[in-house]
Amino acid sequence: MHWIPDGTVTSPMGYSAGATACGLKASGRDDLALLQSDRPATAAGVFTRCSLPAAPVLLDQALLAADASALRGVVINAGIANACTGAAGMDDARDMQAAAADALGCAPRQVLVLSTGVIGRRLDMTKVRAGVIGAAARLRPEGGAELARAIMTTDTRPKEAAVEVALSGGTVRIGGVAKGAGMIHPDMATMLAIVTTDAVVGAADLDALLRAAAAGSFNRISVDGDTSTNDSLLLLANGAAEIGLVGESDRAAFAAGLLAVCRRLALAIVRDGEGARRLAAIEVSGAANGAEALAAARTIATSPLVKTALAGGDPNWGRILAAAARSGARLDAGGVSLSIAAGDGEGGAGGDWLTLVAGGVAAPFAEEEAAAILGGADVAIRLDLGVGAARETVWTCDLTADYVAINADYTT
Amino acid sequence: MHWIPDGTVTSPMGYSAGATACGLKASGRDDLALLQSDRPATAAGVFTRCSLPAAPVLLDQALLAADASALRGVVINAGIANACTGAAGMDDARDMQAAAADALGCAPRQVLVLSTGVIGRRLDMTKVRAGVIGAAARLRPEGGAELARAIMTTDTRPKEAAVEVALSGGTVRIGGVAKGAGMIHPDMATMLAIVTTDAVVGAADLDALLRAAAAGSFNRISVDGDTSTNDSLLLLANGAAEIGLVGESDRAAFAAGLLAVCRRLALAIVRDGEGARRLAAIEVSGAANGAEALAAARTIATSPLVKTALAGGDPNWGRILAAAARSGARLDAGGVSLSIAAGDGEGGAGGDWLTLVAGGVAAPFAEEEAAAILGGADVAIRLDLGVGAARETVWTCDLTADYVAINADYTT
Repeated sequence: MHWIPDGTVTSPMGYSAGATACGLKASGRDDLALLQSDRPATAAGVFTRCSLPAAPVLLDQALLAADASALRGVVINAGIANACTGAAGMDDARDMQAAAADALGCAPRQVLVLSTGVIGRRLDMTKVRAGVIGAAARLRPEGGAELARAIMTTDTRPKEAAVEVALSGGTVRIGGVAKGAGMIHPDMATMLAIVTTDAVVGAADLDALLRAAAAGSFNRISVDGDTSTNDSLLLLANGAAEIGLVGESDRAAFAAGLLAVCRRLALAIVRDGEGARRLAAIEVSGAANGAEALAAARTIATSPLVKTALAGGDPNWGRILAAAARSGARLDAGGVSLSIAAGDGEGGAGGDWLTLVAGGVAAPFAEEEAAAILGGADVAIRLDLGVGAARETVWTCDLTADYVAINADYTT
Repeated sequence: MHWIPDGTVTSPMGYSAGATACGLKASGRDDLALLQSDRPATAAGVFTRCSLPAAPVLLDQALLAADASALRGVVINAGIANACTGAAGMDDARDMQAAAADALGCAPRQVLVLSTGVIGRRLDMTKVRAGVIGAAARLRPEGGAELARAIMTTDTRPKEAAVEVALSGGTVRIGGVAKGAGMIHPDMATMLAIVTTDAVVGAADLDALLRAAAAGSFNRISVDGDTSTNDSLLLLANGAAEIGLVGESDRAAFAAGLLAVCRRLALAIVRDGEGARRLAAIEVSGAANGAEALAAARTIATSPLVKTALAGGDPNWGRILAAAARSGARLDAGGVSLSIAAGDGEGGAGGDWLTLVAGGVAAPFAEEEAAAILGGADVAIRLDLGVGAARETVWTCDLTADYVAINADYTT
């Protein structure tokens, strides 16, 4: 596996993208995008577990459940989430799908729909229909970067990645784009991601591969614990490379490539968290089981006290232990240990570990050494609960005064 | 029931308190306090569910489990939490208990111990022993206010309340003190509360009454969702009024008085939350059951997006719906409604309700009317999930830039 320079969602063969401004964003920037596959693609999706899913989420879930074997495209708008819009909002999502199908020359059931933006407002369908026509006119294999920018809302930069993966039959590509600043803007409809590949993968296989990749990436990040009505992750496999997954080693190589793309996109979301200046990998080891490791890591990753300490570059280990101790995960009070290290830029540890707590009590450490580690843009924190062998990692960012200012001043 | 002006933990008959500065607080303020009952009192306690409970929590739990019928006092220190201090910390807690028992002229098993402050540091027992002697010298029936100040850490004001309750046999009193700014300082060991009464109540009864009162007060508040190693709520009943609870009406009257004291103390904690400028009552109605109502209310109350919107006085209802929708509580997407009102200063609604959402979609409302309500120091928010009849209320505060500044700049 290796990274494709400037790789994006159209790096795999057979995909085109285009975008235009149709007036949904007040800024006047591009806000409507199309992704097209030049042939029918299998597809899989992972969606928000929010109990008020937006209309396009309901539409896509029904579509994939009915037939995920012959998708031709995705239509995406930013600016309006089409969430909490009732039956009229579902009609709008269907109209948007039908308009895109017209433009792409396929059936509506071959087009997935994504929306992101403000909750509770209706889409202006005149603008959307004009936008679909405009975006279709710009479809081209180099269009991925344009799509990546068009789907941004409060993002400060586009998020794209692609890899080449060597399989037994030859090389395939996996590329993707994402938008969102983690789980921090339900009003801005949070996270969308689209991943494509030119490998030949059946729909059922694709679904299993996507769920595993999501579990190790998008489902392991947190900005502030808030999820949205619109969170969606789509994966399309159009088989344009005419190379399939043969045996376990191909499958493992493909899964690793898919995880790498998803994780890079997910970490880009955390880094772009509102007001964030620091990425922290929270690794919990020594847990009784995986669920408890994850519960402890997530509780630490969403604790405002831990996140404000991160903002201040403060080695306040009591806050980390207290968060783990209220997570429900079992721990050995006399066996807990905590260490920190500089990050490696890819969500792991890149330097020597400094022990802050050993055997459940404070370890002697140099304050300036701890401050140097915690002052960096990438930090790794490892908490061992001392009771088992399970291990999980979650990525989070710091909670800064800028986060509060951005969210307190945002007007509905 | 009526409120006792300037009521405190020594308002009930037969209690004395005193405090002194023994050097545990860097500020030099009072940091060690004693509460004494002039006769043996029954006692009950509710403690943190944190899996790293501090030494005094473990000590008190064991003491109350063994014999909760003959307590004579409580010794409290602020500045050092005596948490994450291992076996040595437990020895320190026992020494503190023994010193207080000496000073009060009773057995160690008749003295409860509370600590609050920084996690991970040992108590200086020379200072503690001197402090116990100094506090004992100041014991007096008017000492409640002095105790209330001594147990403060980052609190900006003391928290005290007391009521008189008319029972069939005459009048009894219930008084209390609390410290803490909700669940926002694990490093400062969060919440301590001591409630006293001069009614005659058996230990088993007292335990049931305390648990019910805690469920409607301290367990219904949130500042930032973080709990601590030291959270403790104690209730002592010394029977000095020589009046017991006769029948259901006495029991109900006493329970109401106890709830009133606990709730006023709990709301005082939320109002004193770090950086907080606004108290919000989050009422969730129409839930399938109480557990789901509570889950939805708590998720809203701890959502950083909801809390920053509160800081900005912003009627951002999408954030409130999105928080409820990820809480796991069932809701009717087409039946959800949301209203806001000015608060009444006691945790309830004090003005007309303004409807923001009806039937799951935006209701027309005047922005300036919403802004006027949300700009107040007290706000009530009512979300109806539209599926059942269960209802729960949780109290929270806004999340301001001051909160971040205080917690980011705090140095361990």
